[in-house]
Amino acid sequence: MSEAFSAVDVIMTKRDRGRLTGEQIDWVVDAYTRGAVADEQMAALAMAILLNGMNGTETSRWTQAMIDSGDRLDLSKVGKPLADKHSTGGVGDKITLPLAPLVAACGAAVPQLSGRGLGHTGGTLDKLESIPGWRAELSEDEIVAQLRAVGAVVCATTPRLAPADRKLYALRDVTGTVESVPLIASSIMSKKLAESTDALVLDVKAGTGAFMKTIDAARELARALVGIGAEHGLRTTALLTEMSTPLGRAVGNAVEVAESVEVLRGAGPADVVELTVALAREMLSLVGLADADPARVLASGEAYETWCRMIAAQGGDPDAPLPAASHVHMVEAPAGGVLERLDAYAVGIAAWRLGAGRSRKEDPVQHAAGVLCLVKPGERVEPGQPILELRTNTPDLIPPALAALADAYQIGATPPAPKPLVLDAIHSPAPES
Amino acid sequence: MSEAFSAVDVIMTKRDRGRLTGEQIDWVVDAYTRGAVADEQMAALAMAILLNGMNGTETSRWTQAMIDSGDRLDLSKVGKPLADKHSTGGVGDKITLPLAPLVAACGAAVPQLSGRGLGHTGGTLDKLESIPGWRAELSEDEIVAQLRAVGAVVCATTPRLAPADRKLYALRDVTGTVESVPLIASSIMSKKLAESTDALVLDVKAGTGAFMKTIDAARELARALVGIGAEHGLRTTALLTEMSTPLGRAVGNAVEVAESVEVLRGAGPADVVELTVALAREMLSLVGLADADPARVLASGEAYETWCRMIAAQGGDPDAPLPAASHVHMVEAPAGGVLERLDAYAVGIAAWRLGAGRSRKEDPVQHAAGVLCLVKPGERVEPGQPILELRTNTPDLIPPALAALADAYQIGATPPAPKPLVLDAIHSPAPES
Repeated sequence: MSEAFSAVDVIMTKRDRGRLTGEQIDWVVDAYTRGAVADEQMAALAMAILLNGMNGTETSRWTQAMIDSGDRLDLSKVGKPLADKHSTGGVGDKITLPLAPLVAACGAAVPQLSGRGLGHTGGTLDKLESIPGWRAELSEDEIVAQLRAVGAVVCATTPRLAPADRKLYALRDVTGTVESVPLIASSIMSKKLAESTDALVLDVKAGTGAFMKTIDAARELARALVGIGAEHGLRTTALLTEMSTPLGRAVGNAVEVAESVEVLRGAGPADVVELTVALAREMLSLVGLADADPARVLASGEAYETWCRMIAAQGGDPDAPLPAASHVHMVEAPAGGVLERLDAYAVGIAAWRLGAGRSRKEDPVQHAAGVLCLVKPGERVEPGQPILELRTNTPDLIPPALAALADAYQIGATPPAPKPLVLDAIHSPAPES
Repeated sequence: MSEAFSAVDVIMTKRDRGRLTGEQIDWVVDAYTRGAVADEQMAALAMAILLNGMNGTETSRWTQAMIDSGDRLDLSKVGKPLADKHSTGGVGDKITLPLAPLVAACGAAVPQLSGRGLGHTGGTLDKLESIPGWRAELSEDEIVAQLRAVGAVVCATTPRLAPADRKLYALRDVTGTVESVPLIASSIMSKKLAESTDALVLDVKAGTGAFMKTIDAARELARALVGIGAEHGLRTTALLTEMSTPLGRAVGNAVEVAESVEVLRGAGPADVVELTVALAREMLSLVGLADADPARVLASGEAYETWCRMIAAQGGDPDAPLPAASHVHMVEAPAGGVLERLDAYAVGIAAWRLGAGRSRKEDPVQHAAGVLCLVKPGERVEPGQPILELRTNTPDLIPPALAALADAYQIGATPPAPKPLVLDAIHSPAPES
């Protein structure tokens, strides 16, 4: 069969700083999904895109082509406004766990289709799978039924949503072409748009523990994401949030579920509560439920009730004990003073090395592994007081985790200046009514 | 087996405009040859090199790594100074055919290992294979024996010379990464250095029929080539030569052999004679034979004698009739005047479409196909006088060839200003003695 375009011509267009036409983009994404464009050709194109960029029009079309590579979820029968959230990933970022039932308890439906973790930031599905019996894979009918009955679903993305993105992401991962704003933004947005949500709030993190290390880089990504949302008629808001120190105290899988349950029961670390409520307000506001009061609903226990129903609907036992690690190692403060700094990236790497994360897609994770930050920046410590608790079932993994933590913290005399958690917000233009 | 480097780290170094270390280059070229670096990873790296460049040190090391991927030819037993030539390719460029026996007749040995043609410029082996019985494949022992006995060999490159280059060139061809000066220069020089010649003259062509369209681009490539030669202690000179109109009158395979034989018999087109003698002088000068007089040796018939022995040594019959095309089509002058312009690229494409070239490596070529330029720029024509003769065994190929020639020539009142054939010369630093 003869092809409409030549892959080399498309590559050379972008290599020579040209703009890809809509037809070139449609063809190359489709032909790559079909296998008519080879991996090495898409790798060369991805590198040319990373180095020479794509403008908003190209990025929006690329996103649409990835959506068109598969099916869209049909959530028209849910009968409630649909609001979803996406985080660009951070250390200790378990926010989806309390957020989805909280927003559902406030009257919206949350269709949260997630991936698994790779690298130093954990995956939401890996965390939830520490709950005995809970299953991530749902059919489309099950998703719709659960959204109608419970209002919140956190499950695995279905294979027919944006298959081009799945293939392209795996390629970018091994070819040094992940760090392209247009490719990152189209990857995220193609999945969210294919999910057919009515509104989307993006948590774009900036700092050592985030993919984007600086606020400027995070802002650029946030603008690209909100721009694609606007082009596709999706109500989208991005919050830029701080990710230089872990969110909450728990970093891992079961430990993050436990902390999320604390938050849902009206307790838990202040930063996790603050960010959960801030994101819930944005989601509810985008779907016309600005009068809902997520702080009250969280404190009242209604969100916790929804959590229990959400977990039970996917086979999980919300009351079952979570897996416990066989080995625990404490890192003690070498001196007294104030914890001036606790680095998110180092703690994320340590948790990953303890077994909480995976190096390859096919690796299992240890549900009980992780790090507890017993002391948070700004808190006082005595000499010898435990500041980090390392958990694993594989004691051989403790020394490499400790190596990652060598420069992770600093104890001194000066409490760090308070930093806001939410740094900025980027809104899409008001939807036309 | 664990690898010394990660392919993604090497790619990211060049992506982020860093310099590759010698160890990174050695590893990535070797690992790609072994298959431990995948095609898609090398494609991403090649695009990053094309867009972000390599400096002279990197390019020289890359060249060495490609040489080290295979064996070097051992020509120590030839017992004569060795001089080779490489052309970056042009339309009607049959210069190797008269040049190799001419230089041999002047006392040097010429080990010319060649490739096949792809695209609008022909391949030397394709041309010689129009001679009945001639074979391109020789063993290393046969090459050495022929260099001792005859002084000139034109044959296929052996599979063990720079295998990394063969693999990488095929990849670049399908990934839009051919047009990188460091990659072109290292590809050419790795094969010539692996051949173990003592001296090398490069014919770097500039113009519509050449790979490099401008003199500036050709000069940049020539400097990169001579720079690699100097780094590796190879006496190297580059001539920048004109390639806006075909060299000589014949463009194809058998027709170019016939024209070369005319030149070797003391006749033939003036431009072919001029360039052949100019390149011979440079080659002889580099190996200390500056007193030889190639113009005299060409006119005397000694070079033709060497040609006959060179062809016969490889099984060819120098006296056998060359294949003739079954179909001939004349393009006639629409008006009288002076041929102001005859475009090399258009003529090259026409010859290629007539069957003289191939689109894919595995395609056969028609030895009889090609174009004869009956009139050269500056010559007068009468209305209706044939100016181009198209030859093919496949009459269906004549219309597409004519389409390529639609704007190929211009007849007017003004003879074109005479242009020198050799535009410039770039010499490497004098060798230390």
